[in-house]
Amino acid sequence: MTWKHVGLAKVHRLFYPQVAVVVTVEATGRVGAMPASWCIPLSFNPPFAGLAIASEHEIYKMIVEAQALGINWLDYSHAQQIGELGEISGSEYSNKLSAVELTTISSKTTSQPIIREPSAALECRLHHRVRFGTHELMVSEVIDAHAADHLCDYWDFSKYTPLLYAGTVDQQGKCWVFMSGRGTTARMPFKHQT
Amino acid sequence: MTWKHVGLAKVHRLFYPQVAVVVTVEATGRVGAMPASWCIPLSFNPPFAGLAIASEHEIYKMIVEAQALGINWLDYSHAQQIGELGEISGSEYSNKLSAVELTTISSKTTSQPIIREPSAALECRLHHRVRFGTHELMVSEVIDAHAADHLCDYWDFSKYTPLLYAGTVDQQGKCWVFMSGRGTTARMPFKHQT
Repeated sequence: MTWKHVGLAKVHRLFYPQVAVVVTVEATGRVGAMPASWCIPLSFNPPFAGLAIASEHEIYKMIVEAQALGINWLDYSHAQQIGELGEISGSEYSNKLSAVELTTISSKTTSQPIIREPSAALECRLHHRVRFGTHELMVSEVIDAHAADHLCDYWDFSKYTPLLYAGTVDQQGKCWVFMSGRGTTARMPFKHQT
Repeated sequence: MTWKHVGLAKVHRLFYPQVAVVVTVEATGRVGAMPASWCIPLSFNPPFAGLAIASEHEIYKMIVEAQALGINWLDYSHAQQIGELGEISGSEYSNKLSAVELTTISSKTTSQPIIREPSAALECRLHHRVRFGTHELMVSEVIDAHAADHLCDYWDFSKYTPLLYAGTVDQQGKCWVFMSGRGTTARMPFKHQT
């Protein structure tokens, strides 16, 4: 096999494809939401989830304010909405989710918004923050978890089609690339940014 | 949609499917290797990678000893080997990779082993460790990165078939479940554990 050097600025792309979750939060009367793929479990018991996020994002400040957040899994049928959600800025909308026609309900444990339409959702309390380079790792304790019927002990992938993020590629303009895990790929040109 | 409660012990399964990487290390004359899916980028610059791992694993102690590690991406054609690698114990083999017929070369920057056959590999130095619940987050700085020809600016998914971990399911015995991202699934019964 021929090997080649990969520039360090592109290292994160080796991790693709990654499931895109949607992080949700309410603070100071506004609802924030952002797709994220730098998100993994960090512990079984208590269940902790780690989310690495740049602190410049509006939603970062909102999570620090609320000390809580929701983590939501939307399936591949929502690719268009999730791409658009990744483009619009929290500073321009009092409710980013309604801007892409998603609705929320209030989490029982944290009073934070979770999406009404998802395949699964976690109610989380912020536990710890630690900075590494350009991003901050936000560690949350999962307080409660819900899922659609197509999760039993594991996801039933004959019913649940995951939304896998595979990057934003410059090819006749920027576009979101999502994979279904079933051999199909959605390429959606940016609507809001040039 | 009908929602149901998800037991907190199963929360990590909502994150499936996740690319399975192989972590490699050499310490005290032995070569350790383990598949891992709790692994994400944590920063663009410097490039940091985060790996959450239970400290009971032999490889955890070896990484602490070596203060360095390799992170390797093998494609879907290696599913059988990666499953087997996840079953055998580091305490029983002086070289776990050769036990599953994988070979290594030495990283130039860290002298740590990286796999000879992968689609991509990172040479990393251990930067920071922090405990969350049952696992420890090992944060590494990426010193150098290599990839096969089918990575340009992004993976060319027409050539690179990722290895996506989707759990171990009790169904006529335990088995590894890997997905290709192209609609195919490999279910492999455990060979070494009952």
